[in-house]
Amino acid sequence: MMQAVQRPLILVTNDDGVYARGIRALADMVKPYGDVLVVAPRDAHSGMSHAITVKTPLTLKKIHHEEGLTIYKSNGTPVDCVKLALNILVDRKPAVCVSGINHGSNSSVSVHYSGTLGAAREAAFYGIPSIGFSLMSYDAEADFTDSVAAFKPIFEHVLANGLDTNCYLNVNAPYQVPIQGVKFCRQTAGHWNEAFYERQDPRGETYYWLTGHLQNQEPEADDTCEHALAHGYVSVVPCVIDVTHFGVLRDLQSKLSSR
Amino acid sequence: MMQAVQRPLILVTNDDGVYARGIRALADMVKPYGDVLVVAPRDAHSGMSHAITVKTPLTLKKIHHEEGLTIYKSNGTPVDCVKLALNILVDRKPAVCVSGINHGSNSSVSVHYSGTLGAAREAAFYGIPSIGFSLMSYDAEADFTDSVAAFKPIFEHVLANGLDTNCYLNVNAPYQVPIQGVKFCRQTAGHWNEAFYERQDPRGETYYWLTGHLQNQEPEADDTCEHALAHGYVSVVPCVIDVTHFGVLRDLQSKLSSR
Repeated sequence: MMQAVQRPLILVTNDDGVYARGIRALADMVKPYGDVLVVAPRDAHSGMSHAITVKTPLTLKKIHHEEGLTIYKSNGTPVDCVKLALNILVDRKPAVCVSGINHGSNSSVSVHYSGTLGAAREAAFYGIPSIGFSLMSYDAEADFTDSVAAFKPIFEHVLANGLDTNCYLNVNAPYQVPIQGVKFCRQTAGHWNEAFYERQDPRGETYYWLTGHLQNQEPEADDTCEHALAHGYVSVVPCVIDVTHFGVLRDLQSKLSSR
Repeated sequence: MMQAVQRPLILVTNDDGVYARGIRALADMVKPYGDVLVVAPRDAHSGMSHAITVKTPLTLKKIHHEEGLTIYKSNGTPVDCVKLALNILVDRKPAVCVSGINHGSNSSVSVHYSGTLGAAREAAFYGIPSIGFSLMSYDAEADFTDSVAAFKPIFEHVLANGLDTNCYLNVNAPYQVPIQGVKFCRQTAGHWNEAFYERQDPRGETYYWLTGHLQNQEPEADDTCEHALAHGYVSVVPCVIDVTHFGVLRDLQSKLSSR
């Protein structure tokens, strides 16, 4: 008797929460390629980075099941969701993990703040080829049609070829412009220029509310993610898990190794 | 008239909270070198990574001031504390930012989960030479004497020489063993082997509680942080801000650039 061929298991998560439009678009995108397991935060977790929940218990609740698609929600962070999926739910190793589609850009140093990318990085720790997808629109009702069309071949490439085990992909798409194609780029040097709203609460105590915008530190460079996005391209930045700065390491070793 | 020479401004933060023993040890360590500004979370924020608070307002309250030492606490994350310090409080750019001393190791991939390292990374975004210090003991009453003695020359080197702007340092010390010296190392490949306690709450709902231990994926390697720590050395891993995986980038560009 021939054994039934198992379809690839595809893990889907995000940081905008399980009910966000972006994760539905992503689940729809990958559904033709395998069995889809969605495990995502109950509520929005923007800016949660690679945070994990250590001091409170986690919930995990199945909210939908149909042939080829099962959806869970949790009170945890995006990274918690990946850990719960891999430790509690899966019967086999996911062939790929996709996170997003984030409502808002995660280009440049936003890779460090993003819960979307935190989840992708976490899955990569387990040797699962992983991609974080983001759209440059914070609109909860954003239209994901064009970005999905551009993301699909990137997903297909990773599903077919895997990724280096020290790597995950940070993929961003421009919004409401004709997409010119896909560019593989390096991370733009930048930082967030913050402004804090300073106000008084009803009892007269001062509070601060964070806002700001990304400051591109190398606007002239033409090989960065910011440049690609500004010119209508989808940007793909392959990112490392091992963050050792080998240049500085050699330098410190040669100068200070006598210590 | 001669102008008074300003002492260097030293920014101190952590993720265990402003009342933790580790941050007091760190503030004491750096106080002889300049004017110390401590801005740290009110409560413990372990595992908060590079998270920021975007949906709720932040508080900032001065709780101590003496000559050369001012201490603030905030309801925010470690990264929020750095942003508040740099945007609201400082009158000049800090010469260095130190974060910790963390109660517990931040070696290997823990650099990605750690709020201590998140804060150091954030300060580095602003071009401030930054170091995250951690001690391999979760004990709230841990003795920091030996680790401080080993950390001090590393701090002095960074204060005197600065750091590459794409770099911050992840420094860990072993506990209750004779410290053999300092080793400059690469990040150990590893991941956390999780176990979730699975229990029922009083209403019969299942909940999960995260625990686990770090799995060293390369126990034979002798140039890693885990190896150094296991042999009684303080480990120093210089870490990148730009996480582009340039090897994979070249590979993807050569294979897929026609797209």
